[in-house]
Amino acid sequence: MSDASRILNPTLRSKIMSADEAAALIGHGDNVGMSGFTGAGYPKVVPAALARRIDAAHAAGQEFRVGVWTGASTAPELDGALARANGVELRMPYQSDPACRARINAGEMEYLDIHLSHVAQFVWFGFFGPLNVAVVEVSGILEDGRLIPSSSIGNNKTWLDQADKIILEVNSWQSPKLEGMHDIYYGTQLPPHRQPIPLVHPNDRIGEAYLRVDPAKVVAVVETHHPDRNSAFTPPDDASRQIAGHIIEFLQSEVKRGRLPANLLPLQSGVGNIANAVMAGLLDSPFEHLTAYTEVLQDGMLELLKSGKMTTASATAFSLSPAALEELTANLDQFRERIVLRPQEISNHPELVRRLGIIAMNGMIEADIYGNVNSTHVMGSSIMNGIGGSGDFARNAYLSIFMTPSTAKDGKISCIVPMASHVDHTEHDVQVIVTEQGLADLRGLSPRQRAQVVIENCAHPDFRPALHDYFGRAMEGGGGRHTPHLLQEALSWHLRYQQTGSMR
Amino acid sequence: MSDASRILNPTLRSKIMSADEAAALIGHGDNVGMSGFTGAGYPKVVPAALARRIDAAHAAGQEFRVGVWTGASTAPELDGALARANGVELRMPYQSDPACRARINAGEMEYLDIHLSHVAQFVWFGFFGPLNVAVVEVSGILEDGRLIPSSSIGNNKTWLDQADKIILEVNSWQSPKLEGMHDIYYGTQLPPHRQPIPLVHPNDRIGEAYLRVDPAKVVAVVETHHPDRNSAFTPPDDASRQIAGHIIEFLQSEVKRGRLPANLLPLQSGVGNIANAVMAGLLDSPFEHLTAYTEVLQDGMLELLKSGKMTTASATAFSLSPAALEELTANLDQFRERIVLRPQEISNHPELVRRLGIIAMNGMIEADIYGNVNSTHVMGSSIMNGIGGSGDFARNAYLSIFMTPSTAKDGKISCIVPMASHVDHTEHDVQVIVTEQGLADLRGLSPRQRAQVVIENCAHPDFRPALHDYFGRAMEGGGGRHTPHLLQEALSWHLRYQQTGSMR
Repeated sequence: MSDASRILNPTLRSKIMSADEAAALIGHGDNVGMSGFTGAGYPKVVPAALARRIDAAHAAGQEFRVGVWTGASTAPELDGALARANGVELRMPYQSDPACRARINAGEMEYLDIHLSHVAQFVWFGFFGPLNVAVVEVSGILEDGRLIPSSSIGNNKTWLDQADKIILEVNSWQSPKLEGMHDIYYGTQLPPHRQPIPLVHPNDRIGEAYLRVDPAKVVAVVETHHPDRNSAFTPPDDASRQIAGHIIEFLQSEVKRGRLPANLLPLQSGVGNIANAVMAGLLDSPFEHLTAYTEVLQDGMLELLKSGKMTTASATAFSLSPAALEELTANLDQFRERIVLRPQEISNHPELVRRLGIIAMNGMIEADIYGNVNSTHVMGSSIMNGIGGSGDFARNAYLSIFMTPSTAKDGKISCIVPMASHVDHTEHDVQVIVTEQGLADLRGLSPRQRAQVVIENCAHPDFRPALHDYFGRAMEGGGGRHTPHLLQEALSWHLRYQQTGSMR
Repeated sequence: MSDASRILNPTLRSKIMSADEAAALIGHGDNVGMSGFTGAGYPKVVPAALARRIDAAHAAGQEFRVGVWTGASTAPELDGALARANGVELRMPYQSDPACRARINAGEMEYLDIHLSHVAQFVWFGFFGPLNVAVVEVSGILEDGRLIPSSSIGNNKTWLDQADKIILEVNSWQSPKLEGMHDIYYGTQLPPHRQPIPLVHPNDRIGEAYLRVDPAKVVAVVETHHPDRNSAFTPPDDASRQIAGHIIEFLQSEVKRGRLPANLLPLQSGVGNIANAVMAGLLDSPFEHLTAYTEVLQDGMLELLKSGKMTTASATAFSLSPAALEELTANLDQFRERIVLRPQEISNHPELVRRLGIIAMNGMIEADIYGNVNSTHVMGSSIMNGIGGSGDFARNAYLSIFMTPSTAKDGKISCIVPMASHVDHTEHDVQVIVTEQGLADLRGLSPRQRAQVVIENCAHPDFRPALHDYFGRAMEGGGGRHTPHLLQEALSWHLRYQQTGSMR
């Protein structure tokens, strides 16, 4: 497996060892910063070796748990393996692994769900304590020791900078042609020494193509040849296509009214099938010269780039199906100049999101009739995934759009409810809500006015009468009429689902 | 009342008229952008004249209502008069007038509660429709027509720029020595043309000392000589002093641990008695060379400046007691160089709050055990004031602190509750909660861990057992254990208060 061309620095070459040997350098109680964002660029073999160590320690009656910090979601080989071993004391900032989620919701793992743009700086500030070890996948090491990043950047700059010890996984499965696609900004400072970030267009390159590392901190280099977790997207279903249609119609109307340029503004698109459907919809739209400034580059966005509809895209990670990855790899020379991968503190930076005037499009679990959005919790108590970067984009966007099918679980759950069972995006941050039923433009509307358009335009017809009924009775219920609620009923839809399996 | 020295431009001098004549230029259905922020710099006579017109129209059976947009809160002469006349169709973004609040909660006035940093840009974007009239108080007019701003800036630059017609109130009560204290940044652009805002220290001056106006748009100039709504602060009570003590002890500990510079970072302080008490506490603290980057300059901050403890302060408005105002006016030559008043889109700008690394300290109505904060609503339905700038600062701060006494209404209300009845600041944006009982440092803690420290450190002892009991039963209640809730009970404390007048 030794691919000499991937590890050109002699000092780092001398530290090549097995995953098991590397994992032996991680101890109980360590905070471990791992690479990985949306199933791209995560370490492939050291986490599994660490999970085996943890299993062995637990079998011998010893304590062994670590803190796991990442960019965002990873894969079964990382989150899954460590969660199954019950080896994670605290996980942050975003996860989407079923085993991980089960541990968190069972109360067996602490989970810290913070804005993705906050993670790096809070670690620099020392708010989360020391980072003992970094485990970072790269696609190669230059002769001078600089690192060629992998298919995601996430928090890797921060982990390499802050960790006491560093373990590198050099993955020869990653295309060598990724080199030159990345832009690592090293101009960040701690306050009071911060300067403006000199980025004014989505495709500006303001940093370096390589990650810096202090070779003295590198304790292990592990060679791998493993694919990213690239899974196929579900082809857009009717609901996704309808949501995409409503959004594109709305954007066209905004252009017509002079409130958006003809080529729109940089697009941010959350991860998942609906987001992917919106991108697919844009492919058939009349828009030209689109740009993206987002977290994750999915299939739909790659298609837009390929077609020429989109000129450039900035992200911190790929999340591609195997077919799209093949497309990307085969044409990297064409794509390299038009795609920039950045650290997530830059891809999600409030300064840049506000300056660029992003059109933010994010999925959600539910919204209430007043426009409060729940992105993270099921029935108020259980975590689904995490807030990810949705808050970074929604708060500072030019336009903040949230989308979901109007129902879930075969129509048993209404995604439009009287009161959200958890709030991740407040009424102050939500401008547009879209379901397959239609689009509610909440700009300039008071809560009472919002309730009418959310119910009429977004709720499923089966649930509309009950929502109107709740709102009407709340107006007459004797509480205030700014955001009329009946406190004894506000969460009754969720409770009914818990008790009967349906909100109906 | 004619003070020739205040209106030097001949064209504008020729437009002097009475308040009644000026108010006659405002029509039914107009959107009116008024100056004013925290009871400073609001127009003093045209709103009352408008209210009289509205009363007369209503008496004659005619419709007459306007949209009222401001910087933030104003005074009885503006919000009070127009609300009593039932002349406001929609109010935004922040109000604190009792008559206004009563109309909103009765369902008789629409209220749009948005982040103060969002207002100006959403108007530029055209999201709220046309601005028909601006009514702006200034303290003088230069010979070339430029305007000397008053005791607040708020959204005045935007109103003057965007309005079709402009009414100026020239208030000779305002000190002529305010001239030179303001800094109006004219470098803003619409995306995709935005550039970095070149401000890196709280006292940087990046603009001009005067407001620009197109004289052709000015339809009336009205001379006034009326004081701002300067009310005395309540002297700090025991609870406020204890809250201030906890915060100062915490900041000292952060300095000791190397997580804050010895002179801290720029302070933002919400408006009100507790915020004022924190400033008073800093006066007796060992900190030196403090700075402030905030919305409002209150008495406590002026004392810090006077004592030399604080070197410079940036704000968008004053909110001073009569005694403090006298102090300021008598010493304006000394204060002018150390105080900068800016437009609120700059004082609250996410780019700048993040860059400067603000320590944000804001009041709240209630927090729940998981760290979600309600700043705006009473018992879920009634508006109190509005979110103001608290979200602008909290989200992007270096440290985000929220404070309240642990109880309200003579101990009948617990300000720490199982579930917040409205969420303005989510768990993702709240790092520290303080009551007179103590301080909860939530950084790095999962929701379950937060619940323990919030209950133990912040809740009133009378309510602690019931909160522990709720949390304990929620853990065993069969829902998820990430943010354990019992949905049938989560809002029962508020409901009990509604039904019995007490949460006990």
